[in-house]
Amino acid sequence: MKIAIVGATGAVGVEMLRVLEASTLQPSEVQLYASARSAGSTLPFRRRDLVVRELVPGPIPADVILASAGGSISKAYAPDWVAGGSVVIDNSSAFRLDADVPLVIPEINPDAALSHRGIIANPNCTTAIAAVAVWPLHRAFGVRRMIISTYQATSGAGAKGMEELLEGTRAYLDEQAVEARTFAHAIPFNLIPHIDTFQDNGYTREEMKVAWETRKIFGEPNLRVSCTAVRIPTLRAHSEAITLEFERSATPDEARELLGTAPGVELVDDPAAKRYPMPLTASGKYDVEVGRVRASLVFDGGLDFFVSGDQLLKGAALNAVQIAELLHERGALRAVTSSEVVSGR
Amino acid sequence: MKIAIVGATGAVGVEMLRVLEASTLQPSEVQLYASARSAGSTLPFRRRDLVVRELVPGPIPADVILASAGGSISKAYAPDWVAGGSVVIDNSSAFRLDADVPLVIPEINPDAALSHRGIIANPNCTTAIAAVAVWPLHRAFGVRRMIISTYQATSGAGAKGMEELLEGTRAYLDEQAVEARTFAHAIPFNLIPHIDTFQDNGYTREEMKVAWETRKIFGEPNLRVSCTAVRIPTLRAHSEAITLEFERSATPDEARELLGTAPGVELVDDPAAKRYPMPLTASGKYDVEVGRVRASLVFDGGLDFFVSGDQLLKGAALNAVQIAELLHERGALRAVTSSEVVSGR
Repeated sequence: MKIAIVGATGAVGVEMLRVLEASTLQPSEVQLYASARSAGSTLPFRRRDLVVRELVPGPIPADVILASAGGSISKAYAPDWVAGGSVVIDNSSAFRLDADVPLVIPEINPDAALSHRGIIANPNCTTAIAAVAVWPLHRAFGVRRMIISTYQATSGAGAKGMEELLEGTRAYLDEQAVEARTFAHAIPFNLIPHIDTFQDNGYTREEMKVAWETRKIFGEPNLRVSCTAVRIPTLRAHSEAITLEFERSATPDEARELLGTAPGVELVDDPAAKRYPMPLTASGKYDVEVGRVRASLVFDGGLDFFVSGDQLLKGAALNAVQIAELLHERGALRAVTSSEVVSGR
Repeated sequence: MKIAIVGATGAVGVEMLRVLEASTLQPSEVQLYASARSAGSTLPFRRRDLVVRELVPGPIPADVILASAGGSISKAYAPDWVAGGSVVIDNSSAFRLDADVPLVIPEINPDAALSHRGIIANPNCTTAIAAVAVWPLHRAFGVRRMIISTYQATSGAGAKGMEELLEGTRAYLDEQAVEARTFAHAIPFNLIPHIDTFQDNGYTREEMKVAWETRKIFGEPNLRVSCTAVRIPTLRAHSEAITLEFERSATPDEARELLGTAPGVELVDDPAAKRYPMPLTASGKYDVEVGRVRASLVFDGGLDFFVSGDQLLKGAALNAVQIAELLHERGALRAVTSSEVVSGR
């Protein structure tokens, strides 16, 4: 299997290569693509140095393309890649809500990936981190309402977001002016309740993505989801305070038992020992940390809990590579054609 | 009127003196008290330098004592202060839930202050900041459920909390080890979902205070409140994401109209101009910033919004001085005696 990574030098692209390196996949070739600026640089992969190539229009000679170069690149290039016979696992928001593009978290809806027509979408990082924790509870108790407040790291805006926090913090401590370029305002020792653009309903796109994408991944078009998305001065790993109302009453003990064995989840819930989810411990980890599980004080039989997950891993690179592994295991590397869909698979 | 500040050199005490300086009160004398360590130092007040005295047991010759030296000091000393004829406005949690101690936010329940028996409690900072924003909405629409996620600054743990963040951040940037003393874990570029001690129900005391105190201040013992309290690496001003369910349906426009004229509130809600509440703009401000007002997606007729307020000001020092101003204006500087209470005032 030949695998290509598009956007290989970005914050997510670099993690895609690392996760691929540690995966059980044995690609016969790994190709790296980025903009002309990064072309010619090298990245190590399994004791070799891979040269980054410039991305140009047209097909790519790979079975699987892991794309993380932004929505406009994906929109412009993906049709050619699919026409050339590749399966595209796209980390941008370009295709996530398209009816004929599966939006997949392998722990939740793996089968959806198998009916792809050449493109599979990787969810938004905030959605993915919440969804792996909420899914086992949804299956057991049926989520009716979900209220999420996020604590999102600067690397959610790419490597440049992290650099802006570090540079700005140094400037602040040296009593110099702090510049805001990537973010709408200075981020050091501040927070910004504004991620992505504002919609007519007053929510940001980031907040609406959590609602739209969770509904699609869960197959629950009527799920009630409300989100407040906030950028905070951390480097890596997004955290989320989540309140759930259920159809069927849940207890914290039942929830901990389910979360303790749920794939993609690490139960970190021992307050007496000061153990709970934090960016400090969740960064670099494949599993999403879940803790502070307690009975909701506003919904009878509901739950409150807190999650921290590495948004570059489960929120992006890891989930994408897991989709590639899934396609490989299930022999689904060829796109389903229109005629197969029409004939009633 | 003679005013004393106990804990005058702490993060809140210093602000109490500044707020008092800017207030319309004309105290005939201002006395400052702190531990032996700080005794002898001076703090400026209206062009004079006031000498800090050592706090010793026994009465203080002042009409009003603004106390912010911690719960154990207040518990041990306040009875003597009251016996000596002073009115104590206490910023600790020692007396807040006592049935015969009024818990007061002047914008909300000023009349409660008038029936004091020598002690008036100042609310928890997180409670005060949420309550001034929620109160006008509660009066108009009747809050049924309130879900709060907090983003709390390090100065909530006093001046030493702020120092730990600044020192730790410098150490982190210099690739040195980061120490955690005030906080349970390293706070630079991290967050900690743990403020105050854990209760049997899995909530922290900080989280429960928001529920207990809001109910008492609003006079609504059955209000359903759930809170997740999180320390983040900011210096000053607490922020909170708040979701409200109401008895009577509210629209964002109605809410903005009420909040635009509510005392203690500054409506900062112009997303198109990138204006919303942030610690950067709320720090040092008397009013609590309220913005991101939008229709809830989980409660029909409910609201989501975001607040940032200076927890050393409205969350502590300002509210305490406002209570002193209220007592002065209403001539309530003498405690209500038991016989007056019994005779049916």
